[in-house]
Amino acid sequence: MTVSVAVVDAQTPGNVGTIARAMKNFGVTDLKLVDPPELDRDGEAYGYAGQAREDILPNAEVVSFREVVENYHTVATTAITNQDATKHVRYPFVTPRELADELREIDSDVCLVFGREDVGLTNEELAEVDQICTIPASAEYPVLNLGQAATIVLYELRDVTVGDTQLPEITDRADQPAIEGLHEQFASFLTAIDHPEEKRPKAGRLFRRVIGRAHPTGREVRTLRGLFRRVEQKLED
Amino acid sequence: MTVSVAVVDAQTPGNVGTIARAMKNFGVTDLKLVDPPELDRDGEAYGYAGQAREDILPNAEVVSFREVVENYHTVATTAITNQDATKHVRYPFVTPRELADELREIDSDVCLVFGREDVGLTNEELAEVDQICTIPASAEYPVLNLGQAATIVLYELRDVTVGDTQLPEITDRADQPAIEGLHEQFASFLTAIDHPEEKRPKAGRLFRRVIGRAHPTGREVRTLRGLFRRVEQKLED
Repeated sequence: MTVSVAVVDAQTPGNVGTIARAMKNFGVTDLKLVDPPELDRDGEAYGYAGQAREDILPNAEVVSFREVVENYHTVATTAITNQDATKHVRYPFVTPRELADELREIDSDVCLVFGREDVGLTNEELAEVDQICTIPASAEYPVLNLGQAATIVLYELRDVTVGDTQLPEITDRADQPAIEGLHEQFASFLTAIDHPEEKRPKAGRLFRRVIGRAHPTGREVRTLRGLFRRVEQKLED
Repeated sequence: MTVSVAVVDAQTPGNVGTIARAMKNFGVTDLKLVDPPELDRDGEAYGYAGQAREDILPNAEVVSFREVVENYHTVATTAITNQDATKHVRYPFVTPRELADELREIDSDVCLVFGREDVGLTNEELAEVDQICTIPASAEYPVLNLGQAATIVLYELRDVTVGDTQLPEITDRADQPAIEGLHEQFASFLTAIDHPEEKRPKAGRLFRRVIGRAHPTGREVRTLRGLFRRVEQKLED
């Protein structure tokens, strides 16, 4: 499967740059522009694009809306859906997360279609796309900026489009024996500081709950254990 | 629990406006600014803020970094984490989705802290916050623009911060008897058009798989069923 992005009739170059940057951040390279504004190399589009100014923006292809709908499984994002299930232009819709779940299982060339800053895509355009996507937002103000909406949809599709993320594999969570060793050390520490004997079990449980929620790394556990041991050693001196 | 946002030493007013808009889209109202640029009512901050220009931006409070860390459970977002579990400034980290899961269970005043456009938060600042959050992105280019990063984190926290979204309740999924009725109609339609008898079960299964993936609404099922019936009626004429 491939994922492309089409921006229809954007009015401000800055938004095109913002979308290009989000594409680069989330592993999408193919940008199509329908009736784009002029994208000057010294202007806002390139200024906002970050490293996408080197490839995605200069390689963007100017196409017609028709070419997009004819060649791709098209998904349009719109803030306003229909309450009324009889109005099929904007209903049914999927959320970006539901879209990601679906696309993971589909072998098709997909194009995400984003519309104008002020009015989005027209009802005529929406009627021609295959799926409608809507970002859940505050009922009070659900209308996102064009670039921000595209950023969220691309972010949600990252599992489909990004090979490797920058995140390191977390392999350093402490193992349970190490954590139990910390709790034994803590119990011994309570004794060493003469915490009232009847209160020690409760303090131990409290500490266990704190550590239980923190999912500490091996190093954190070793460090804490060392600190409690150090108290004992100091008191023995 | 309350969620606030602090923007530290932003250099461009436009990013402050973008963040204010995302806050309004996702139900967060309290904006704190540490060393902000000048926010002119006719400038980019107000221009980019959408309806947040009416409340969030004019009500934003200028504070010190110290005031933020002293009064909130602070969560800083940074693109670059440590590979090395011994470097505690940027490790361990949570993803925005993990953060949302955690905050749902916590009763505390949380402040999301976002840093400068070029260098983010300094190591000294990161050392003072309570949690580090990192947006999974392409290893090739994981550095998001400030406004786009804030938009994604606020989007992920929407379950915690947004009361009602704009999305209508989906109550119009077709019920199973209606769907079975469609399949019966389809079988009858295959007969009516003289589809080879031995191929009818396979065609029926294919249609069942298509409809099964589409989760159609009641109206869609009724309409399709009506169309197939119409074919039969036409053929009988």
